[in-house]
Amino acid sequence: MKMKGETLVILNFKTYMESTGLNALKLAQASEEVADETGITIAVAPQAADLWKITEEVDIPVFSQHIDAIEAGGHTGRILLESVHQAGAKGTLINHSEQRMELADIDMVVQKSSKVDMTSVVCTNNVDTSAAAATLKPDFVAIEPPELIGSGIPVSQAEPEVVEGTVQVIHDINPKVGVLCGAGISTGDDMKAALKLGAEGVLLASGIILAPNPKEALMGLVSKL
Amino acid sequence: MKMKGETLVILNFKTYMESTGLNALKLAQASEEVADETGITIAVAPQAADLWKITEEVDIPVFSQHIDAIEAGGHTGRILLESVHQAGAKGTLINHSEQRMELADIDMVVQKSSKVDMTSVVCTNNVDTSAAAATLKPDFVAIEPPELIGSGIPVSQAEPEVVEGTVQVIHDINPKVGVLCGAGISTGDDMKAALKLGAEGVLLASGIILAPNPKEALMGLVSKL
Amino acid sequence: MKMKGETLVILNFKTYMESTGLNALKLAQASEEVADETGITIAVAPQAADLWKITEEVDIPVFSQHIDAIEAGGHTGRILLESVHQAGAKGTLINHSEQRMELADIDMVVQKSSKVDMTSVVCTNNVDTSAAAATLKPDFVAIEPPELIGSGIPVSQAEPEVVEGTVQVIHDINPKVGVLCGAGISTGDDMKAALKLGAEGVLLASGIILAPNPKEALMGLVSKL
Amino acid sequence: MKMKGETLVILNFKTYMESTGLNALKLAQASEEVADETGITIAVAPQAADLWKITEEVDIPVFSQHIDAIEAGGHTGRILLESVHQAGAKGTLINHSEQRMELADIDMVVQKSSKVDMTSVVCTNNVDTSAAAATLKPDFVAIEPPELIGSGIPVSQAEPEVVEGTVQVIHDINPKVGVLCGAGISTGDDMKAALKLGAEGVLLASGIILAPNPKEALMGLVSKL
Repeated sequence: MKMKGETLVILNFKTYMESTGLNALKLAQASEEVADETGITIAVAPQAADLWKITEEVDIPVFSQHIDAIEAGGHTGRILLESVHQAGAKGTLINHSEQRMELADIDMVVQKSSKVDMTSVVCTNNVDTSAAAATLKPDFVAIEPPELIGSGIPVSQAEPEVVEGTVQVIHDINPKVGVLCGAGISTGDDMKAALKLGAEGVLLASGIILAPNPKEALMGLVSKL
Repeated sequence: MKMKGETLVILNFKTYMESTGLNALKLAQASEEVADETGITIAVAPQAADLWKITEEVDIPVFSQHIDAIEAGGHTGRILLESVHQAGAKGTLINHSEQRMELADIDMVVQKSSKVDMTSVVCTNNVDTSAAAATLKPDFVAIEPPELIGSGIPVSQAEPEVVEGTVQVIHDINPKVGVLCGAGISTGDDMKAALKLGAEGVLLASGIILAPNPKEALMGLVSKL
Repeated sequence: MKMKGETLVILNFKTYMESTGLNALKLAQASEEVADETGITIAVAPQAADLWKITEEVDIPVFSQHIDAIEAGGHTGRILLESVHQAGAKGTLINHSEQRMELADIDMVVQKSSKVDMTSVVCTNNVDTSAAAATLKPDFVAIEPPELIGSGIPVSQAEPEVVEGTVQVIHDINPKVGVLCGAGISTGDDMKAALKLGAEGVLLASGIILAPNPKEALMGLVSKL
Repeated sequence: MKMKGETLVILNFKTYMESTGLNALKLAQASEEVADETGITIAVAPQAADLWKITEEVDIPVFSQHIDAIEAGGHTGRILLESVHQAGAKGTLINHSEQRMELADIDMVVQKSSKVDMTSVVCTNNVDTSAAAATLKPDFVAIEPPELIGSGIPVSQAEPEVVEGTVQVIHDINPKVGVLCGAGISTGDDMKAALKLGAEGVLLASGIILAPNPKEALMGLVSKL
């Protein structure tokens, strides 16, 4: 499942109670309804322990939030790619700002994902690290300036040059790598601005999860496209 | 679910392919059969992504391999207690040698587990750290000298003084804390030796998981009790 | 150099510019002057790169801020006990809240310190982890509730029960272990309160380092004893 | 101090007893003698606690083994760039295989080094991560396949394609970045092979440090150039 070329919305469930366990399932189902009604590709990224439940019940792409840079073996407590893959994950976030990884480990997980055709999304914090990530040939780089995460201030408005710069350097290094725009996206206008700057999609989280009505918030975000 | 007072066998699935995904489910079912046939309490500790599937299908205690020292919130990629608890986990390993934790974090996870009545099993590497762990009041301390893990050499035979010493210091510090014996246990004799030294159970892994016939191996281990 | 039994003041230089390089040397010299004028034992804990310079120039105990749980060998970039010891360190902080360590690693560094007669000071965050630390037999446990670090609010006033509780549990577990009081101590009254609660000394940092006149601040703190 | 364009030899002291404290000083002095006798630029990278002593006594470039991705402040136990810089370090290793760093942190330390004109050497493990590192604009990338570190098998012979591939991709991405060749280099022939493949220098460690006569070993290595 590669989804390059069409607009991609990924909803990162993080570890909020609002997106854990049965709440995670409800949020995934709401996301599926919005995807069905709008035709937009919406992927959800729940916690590892919620993957099976959600992939059994919904028909939209489900991502892992993280995969550890390990091969099968003695690694108690770690997240093995094969485990989330068998649980139905079609892709994974890598190097999220809340779970930063070593460079060599990012490389390993991107390679492992590619071998089983899981979509890889490497999160980065600025133009330079976006360029570095692009050399590793993931499917997507998601640029999220850390100071904007959870701020409600969309990167597409606060720092458009970061999005444009990322789109430019990635185009130069490897045009097959798509750019997603994260951090602070919560309205349809934020999202349109991001796409206009060259992003192919967005990475969402608390703006939707903690909204009074997440389905409405998500619908408001994608229905304007 | 506290299980202090009766013999407890925990099978740590680690991240072997033999204990991932559908293989994890089969291994859990085999463990359930052995538990049913022998009356021994056998708990299984699969990877996070396999918890839902297994707790839905088997009726023995299912443990998490690890829980991160976090509260609900923005912690992408981490293991939240509430997520594994909702997925049906009745207990958790803490501070396994393959996932060592900071002292303050062990304390936090033991406290959080206690509040929702999840059985806490803190893994330790020697008598001194076992004493330290016991002061934090977990349900169990599992002593596993690192040099014996995966060795096939049972701690109960190679270093009986470590098991006895652990039983003694824990009795002095907090007699409510049970002692499990890990590292190298793979036969019924190993297990009997461990119980004779004062342990209330064992923590198993590769000796069973990688056996040609895991169910037989597990049966051989517990049927002599 | 064990200093149990007399009042001990440790000044943690952290990584402020005010306590780096030549500033570190000046601060150590000021601390020495205060120690000489008051007769109080004052130890300073500069960054690793400043140890040689300071131990060559001052005659008060110099501590390391951290030691990694490694033996000599291939550990590029780590802090080896033998290196800080040869650089003249007489003791070390262990498990500071800004450099938390795994339980097994705290144990290892306390043991290694003991073998070369370096004073070990294990930092902890609450009564339970103080008890755990005491079982490892360090020379001192320094209790620092994390919410008070750098706050200017002294633990001896804000949470006296934490200091008293720590003194009590440590007395029960191992009366040879001294208790230091950290977090928020910046005046002589704070310090007297800490000693009255049973502490044998204090662990200071930003309250002194960032004071307009650190020597005066330190003098004000110890001259009332 | 940038040293691009001439052959550069860096001797990483790691944390061996043979290169700690007074032994570190002797090894630095021997390195200086070889540099003086041969005219080759030889830099030494001792542990943080040995920096002051060595920079006071020798006149060759001294590097740090690691710098943490922090600004001045409350970071007890960490390695602050300003501290090693004031201690006389002219450059630093970054992301050594024994001290891997997160991608965003590598970026930060390269930027901070550049601002004070410290030579930055980012260690990498394969061609892909070398490309990624080059996008961050360090002075050098040191390619060290992890399976060859400490093996005595020189990368220039065992995996010449890794060195050539690294030289090629880095030339394409940023020709201002120099390539060093690490892992297994211990003889003059290994070194010549590395330079022939396009490297501008080498990163040495145990092959020299643990040699019966390190000065002779180093002389044998550079005198053939």
